[in-house]
Amino acid sequence: MSERLFSFAAGDHGYWRIVRLEAVRGESLDQASRLEVLGGTQAPAAAARWVLRGFTSNERYTARRERDLLLANQPALGRPEATCAALIPIRKSAAWWERAQDERREILEERSRHIATGLRYLPAIARRLHHCRDLGEPFDFLTWFEYAPGDSPAFEELVVLLRRSEEWRYVDREIDIRLVADRHAAAQAAT
Amino acid sequence: MSERLFSFAAGDHGYWRIVRLEAVRGESLDQASRLEVLGGTQAPAAAARWVLRGFTSNERYTARRERDLLLANQPALGRPEATCAALIPIRKSAAWWERAQDERREILEERSRHIATGLRYLPAIARRLHHCRDLGEPFDFLTWFEYAPGDSPAFEELVVLLRRSEEWRYVDREIDIRLVADRHAAAQAAT
Repeated sequence: MSERLFSFAAGDHGYWRIVRLEAVRGESLDQASRLEVLGGTQAPAAAARWVLRGFTSNERYTARRERDLLLANQPALGRPEATCAALIPIRKSAAWWERAQDERREILEERSRHIATGLRYLPAIARRLHHCRDLGEPFDFLTWFEYAPGDSPAFEELVVLLRRSEEWRYVDREIDIRLVADRHAAAQAAT
Repeated sequence: MSERLFSFAAGDHGYWRIVRLEAVRGESLDQASRLEVLGGTQAPAAAARWVLRGFTSNERYTARRERDLLLANQPALGRPEATCAALIPIRKSAAWWERAQDERREILEERSRHIATGLRYLPAIARRLHHCRDLGEPFDFLTWFEYAPGDSPAFEELVVLLRRSEEWRYVDREIDIRLVADRHAAAQAAT
């Protein structure tokens, strides 16, 4: 599973400093000062307050024309100027998962414009979606975003638009975690 | 992950006796005499020749009307009369996974009638689909079928229809494993 699996470990170590962690809906997660993003089965550098895991996968709703636009415009993670990040774990309700594929697509895109809205913020905002419902994790999805400080207003706008959408009525737990890159912390963790 | 995860362990133990194991396309799996179907993180009773793992998940292509028909007609696993089983691990090609959601649905159902064909064999043939591509397993899907001996001709027909479909051109590895329930073997394994 190593290539597709990622872990997000919160504690006192890690390259990313947590500047805000708050529950948008449902139960929160424990506060922590740093976050480590780990690939595969890598273990956290130190005892973690919490660890969330998810895997990348094929897109579940994206149509051909949308996929072509995404592939042409989406930036890679790890751009040196993208020193701001967000980790947004969400869980969707039983009502969402009871819906069939065509109904979920209808809500997600035809009525909520999830994909179209995301496309408007490319190439400023890099994104990686991790699936975790099938792992029996407490959340269904973990989305990781990276952007430059100057694109923070654009990111806030994107988050507001998604939360206002019909799709978001099916989100029954959501945590909003904001982070900044911190080379000093990474050096500490390495010692 | 325990509720959604299942393992299929082949070796000398298990309730199911393997009556045939053959590669339909690509590399085969080692021959074995028995198969154990394990839920969650349960370990095989004895050293296994091979173990395949997968998780059940929400349907990825099924539209509302199809889902209603499935829910109304699909039988549970474990019917006492369903003493025949099949495990069919398949892997799909990179070309399949490069396709967007709408293209995959178009091939799978509009052109290959995968869901409609399966529905015609309900309630005779029980089925559970396990996903494994995201786990980094050697196959993408493991489908487990159970049926009564009298429904064997119907099952052969279903398999032939699917293999003839356009969707199956994207299957680059497939193993066909047929099994029969064997209470004696289960008793042996328990001792």
